[in-house]
Amino acid sequence: MHALFASEIRMTYCVGILVDEGLVFLSDSRTNAGVDQISTFRKVALFEHPGDRVMVLMTAGNLAISQALISILHERFADKTSEANVSLANAKNMFEAARIVGEGLREVYHRDAAALKENGVEFNATLIFGGQIAGELPRLFNIYSAGNFIEATPDTPYFQIGESKYGKPILDRVITRSLGLQRSVKCALVSMDSTIRSNLSVGLPLDLITVKRDALRIGSHVNIDAQHQYYTMINRQWSESLRHAFHAIPDPDWL
Amino acid sequence: MHALFASEIRMTYCVGILVDEGLVFLSDSRTNAGVDQISTFRKVALFEHPGDRVMVLMTAGNLAISQALISILHERFADKTSEANVSLANAKNMFEAARIVGEGLREVYHRDAAALKENGVEFNATLIFGGQIAGELPRLFNIYSAGNFIEATPDTPYFQIGESKYGKPILDRVITRSLGLQRSVKCALVSMDSTIRSNLSVGLPLDLITVKRDALRIGSHVNIDAQHQYYTMINRQWSESLRHAFHAIPDPDWL
Repeated sequence: MHALFASEIRMTYCVGILVDEGLVFLSDSRTNAGVDQISTFRKVALFEHPGDRVMVLMTAGNLAISQALISILHERFADKTSEANVSLANAKNMFEAARIVGEGLREVYHRDAAALKENGVEFNATLIFGGQIAGELPRLFNIYSAGNFIEATPDTPYFQIGESKYGKPILDRVITRSLGLQRSVKCALVSMDSTIRSNLSVGLPLDLITVKRDALRIGSHVNIDAQHQYYTMINRQWSESLRHAFHAIPDPDWL
Repeated sequence: MHALFASEIRMTYCVGILVDEGLVFLSDSRTNAGVDQISTFRKVALFEHPGDRVMVLMTAGNLAISQALISILHERFADKTSEANVSLANAKNMFEAARIVGEGLREVYHRDAAALKENGVEFNATLIFGGQIAGELPRLFNIYSAGNFIEATPDTPYFQIGESKYGKPILDRVITRSLGLQRSVKCALVSMDSTIRSNLSVGLPLDLITVKRDALRIGSHVNIDAQHQYYTMINRQWSESLRHAFHAIPDPDWL
């Protein structure tokens, strides 16, 4: 398999969860262009003005597109020269912030999509974007390749991007808005563990970020690798629990 | 969404398991061409000469293709007029039988693929085929749209077709060749339950078929609907067990 950097596809897995207590973001960092070429790239970008706003962006899809987008957003976020410059630094609310991210994605599209297509590569990037701006509650968005987006609601308190199916059953069964931040982190890690167990292209290390409601800053940002005690405990105990739960169900002796 | 019968796509889920004690086949029966058009069709075909051979075929993909294939195979299986007629009735071993099924699929391809393509429909059919012919051990195959196939080995004792990801984690954790037929059935049902829970397009009723090693006949063929006591018990208990296992894991109080 050719490993053109332009077409480097990330079979990644990211999950973002919005609960009453705040936001959880979990992302793997595996990038590959075929199983013989696997590398590690951070897929998460942070935008923070402590006390005023905090935002987290996770990306899935083509790596070059994600990096171009993050670079545009960071540059404008840091640009203090012009008040007229509309960026994540001065967006009035998270809805406007999500629109700025979507528009950034459209800029990258207009610059790169034609050239990508000539090389037989689809313009492919999906994003989870969330955070809080002073005056609002925390909000969470799922932004598509076209730059349009949807917002999490009490009925759908989480978004997944990338290899989402393996890790969906536990989210569907456990996540509610009242779950609490620590348990939401635990659920995200179990969901990630199921995905990594079943899909080679998703792998450690993980980026875990939490944002407490009304803290208006990053709560914790943890790098989880194969030596991380809590994650290896989950990995071991969840497998054991599943097997135990399985064997606790009566066998179908009516067969 | 248009609901052309020619393009009726089945977001189905089937799993076939080969263990030392025999074979398990489990299939849902949901067919849809968009969420507003959901119907129920059997996706399983049986070929049985008790004492000599027993074979089971499960299909995913385009319904018209699957039905055409099953109809060809059944017709030739029943045709007693010619000994020269090579069919599932006189295949010497399961490998030859799998080749006959693959060739049947190629016949359908040559007849229908061009017309399907004109209507913008891909030729899409994936099969799980398994059974036992006297003189051999039971065998299990995964047959692709192109008519080629792979065989289950001790390392990969199961195949899934259709919406396979939601239900894969439990299979990966539990299935080994020594698991036993009843527990393999239980595992298939848990895997199906996770899939149905997370994906609207996979649904009841289910077709469950077991084939005991050396019995050379269908062991059981059970139709499982929403009233089926054992399945509803699994559905309830598995959800409870997952939630219980989740809450038994210590919360990440280091956050």
